[in-house]
Amino acid sequence: MAVTEYLRTHRERHLGELFDWLRIPSISAKSEHRDDTRQAAEWLVERMLEAGLQTAEAIPTEGHPIVIGEWRGAPEGAPTLLVYGHYDVQPPEPLDEWTSAPFQPELRDGKIYARGSVDDKGQVYLHLKAVEAHIAENGKLPVNVVFVVEGEEEVGSPNLQGFLVENRERLQCDAVLISDTTMFAEGLPSVTVGLRGLAYMEIHVQGPATDLHSGSYGGAVVNPANALAKIISRLHDEKGRVTVTGFYDDVRDLTPEEREAVRQLPFEDEVLRREVGAPALGGEEGWSALERKSARPTLDVNGLLSGYTGEGAKTVLPARAMAKVSMRLVPDQDFRDIEEKFARYVEEIAPPGVTVKVEALHGGMPWRADPKEPIFQSAVRALEQAFGRTPVFSREGGSIPIVQAFQQTFGAPVVLLGFGLPGENAHAPNEWMSEDNFYRGAEAIAILYDEL
Amino acid sequence: MAVTEYLRTHRERHLGELFDWLRIPSISAKSEHRDDTRQAAEWLVERMLEAGLQTAEAIPTEGHPIVIGEWRGAPEGAPTLLVYGHYDVQPPEPLDEWTSAPFQPELRDGKIYARGSVDDKGQVYLHLKAVEAHIAENGKLPVNVVFVVEGEEEVGSPNLQGFLVENRERLQCDAVLISDTTMFAEGLPSVTVGLRGLAYMEIHVQGPATDLHSGSYGGAVVNPANALAKIISRLHDEKGRVTVTGFYDDVRDLTPEEREAVRQLPFEDEVLRREVGAPALGGEEGWSALERKSARPTLDVNGLLSGYTGEGAKTVLPARAMAKVSMRLVPDQDFRDIEEKFARYVEEIAPPGVTVKVEALHGGMPWRADPKEPIFQSAVRALEQAFGRTPVFSREGGSIPIVQAFQQTFGAPVVLLGFGLPGENAHAPNEWMSEDNFYRGAEAIAILYDEL
Repeated sequence: MAVTEYLRTHRERHLGELFDWLRIPSISAKSEHRDDTRQAAEWLVERMLEAGLQTAEAIPTEGHPIVIGEWRGAPEGAPTLLVYGHYDVQPPEPLDEWTSAPFQPELRDGKIYARGSVDDKGQVYLHLKAVEAHIAENGKLPVNVVFVVEGEEEVGSPNLQGFLVENRERLQCDAVLISDTTMFAEGLPSVTVGLRGLAYMEIHVQGPATDLHSGSYGGAVVNPANALAKIISRLHDEKGRVTVTGFYDDVRDLTPEEREAVRQLPFEDEVLRREVGAPALGGEEGWSALERKSARPTLDVNGLLSGYTGEGAKTVLPARAMAKVSMRLVPDQDFRDIEEKFARYVEEIAPPGVTVKVEALHGGMPWRADPKEPIFQSAVRALEQAFGRTPVFSREGGSIPIVQAFQQTFGAPVVLLGFGLPGENAHAPNEWMSEDNFYRGAEAIAILYDEL
Repeated sequence: MAVTEYLRTHRERHLGELFDWLRIPSISAKSEHRDDTRQAAEWLVERMLEAGLQTAEAIPTEGHPIVIGEWRGAPEGAPTLLVYGHYDVQPPEPLDEWTSAPFQPELRDGKIYARGSVDDKGQVYLHLKAVEAHIAENGKLPVNVVFVVEGEEEVGSPNLQGFLVENRERLQCDAVLISDTTMFAEGLPSVTVGLRGLAYMEIHVQGPATDLHSGSYGGAVVNPANALAKIISRLHDEKGRVTVTGFYDDVRDLTPEEREAVRQLPFEDEVLRREVGAPALGGEEGWSALERKSARPTLDVNGLLSGYTGEGAKTVLPARAMAKVSMRLVPDQDFRDIEEKFARYVEEIAPPGVTVKVEALHGGMPWRADPKEPIFQSAVRALEQAFGRTPVFSREGGSIPIVQAFQQTFGAPVVLLGFGLPGENAHAPNEWMSEDNFYRGAEAIAILYDEL
């Protein structure tokens, strides 16, 4: 196929372009990187026009710009695909754990190491290369394509939903394609049909009004750090179940057929254990590790802070202790309901002698696709041709809250075609994307245009 | 009495001198304050010579200098008193909680606010003023006096013990006087006859090898912060007792008489509660708040750190979690034994899926005086005259590890005559010393010289 041939011929150049993009530290969370983030948007606009899109622009928002690129020359009646992605990246800290610098991309052992390589610049860029291939070979695409690439995904997409609603007519589409997930295993192409939701909370425990000398007061004053530890320890029971009252009320349990499908997936606990480098896995009793991390709701501490954390011994009885705690949710849990239940429960179990405040920082709904929609079958065929293997339907443990927004705004199916891989270190030091997946992903997308 | 009169006449000047000393930020823990710390030592040497000591010098150590000042003109057979104190201070952080700047002393409502006011510069300086009064009025002292004032008390006195042993002959004495403790209540002079020991530990919990995305991995990987919270929650039982195996083995329980003496002390839980500003007090069942904070061993978290602690929501499953945990010990607990027991217990209760490392950072023995020694009766008489009220014998919850060192090196009784007050915020923001106690403390010491 000419289009595939084109992509294979130009691999080196395409990778070099991606490297250029990865060198721009578009960290949306940090105001000192505001210019870099804008620059990453403008860089993309230029590449879109070069690739052959008819229009491309970076539209300002109250935060970082949203890049829109369009090609609308398909025959009457051809479908319109909306491709969503993001050009912003997570902060790279802790820096000293990176083998190569986060914004100096490096190819090692077939992996593209850089912050943003897989999340999500590499996965956005392969879509653009698929478009380029069609236009270069055929002068046109078989479908209309609209890109919506935002710069605030890593800070909760505060401006995207409003933008979609305001531009509903312009962006109206028949399907939404997103590549911001991982394949189930190396060489095994995957369509993600489930995502977990998120309820991200902060607990503040106040004991005495100020820090006290732990010698003079220790024993008689309730220590807020000890109290916080007690609270956290009571968020799970001995079987690893979350104890927040009513937490599981709305969980739609997996059907026996769904559990069987999970069991069929090629997954080994020991491989996961080695991948994460922990002495053993853990979690909720009665479920496999794979179910635990993708189809079951969970609760994790994301941050802890209290008292003196510098070098050496400071004998302080701290006035305050803080924890960030987030829960991953599954259908049909509602993050607003879980936020309330969590706050109520934590206040209930708070020991006397301290004051507890619970705050909801960020939330998103869980999601499940309907894989019976025809576009899922098109995706399966495209992936099969590009990767030479029948793809699987899988669920991912993370959250892409914006998936709901697309589904609701356009009433169109959302297809998650991810080209990441397990162990890719998204959000962690040494993030990487498989070089091979970058190439094959572009081929799969190019084929998909013809399969629709 | 002329000496007392002298002290009353010169109060204003003496307070002004103390203010000058307090302005020097002699923070021993911070290398950037090394020059300030040395300057505080040199300042003291000059004041010692002005007060009439025969010799005074700042003797270099591997860390901060030790100031020695001597007056040895007493009649043959008169006792020699060694006065110990320290001129270094705790770091002042958190700075934004101070009403006035920590190194700009301010008198408000009869309180001298400054870092180091009561711990320990104010309490050292009143001894020097007592000496000055005797020499100014009588040209001599009734006893020999040697000052040993170190600059590393707040960092564990790493060089003092060696110094004492090396200079044992020069410093040989009949009693050691230390003012670095608090009076039991305002207006109630006190001799401290018990101190708690300390075992200060650090727990490191390692889960996965690097930080992970809490969405992709949460549920299947044991979270080290949750694991740490679980460990900490299991360091106390439901009755507030420390659960470390063997923790209470060597605790010499209070006798019924000692408990009765504690009950006789003027102490109200509600006053303590308001002083610390907590919603309620807490602690080990079966003991009064006063016993809990002075005569019972305890365990407190001093610091907690894990994952993301900045603003907002970062969905990280942290690789590591750390806690600083210290235990206050009572006779006859041995801090080395407790360190071992703690480490063993924490390793025992560590949940699977994480690796736990326990480190001992700092330790000190608990201490109890023998108040039948004659010098305690002299102290009682001196305090009674200066404060107009019969002093009490009390126990303090803090640790002064160096007390043991003096007792062992010189075989002499150690007398803790403290002029601090409850609520003085030692080691916390807004540290203060009672102005009245600074004056009366000097009078009490001046009288004590005549009572020996």
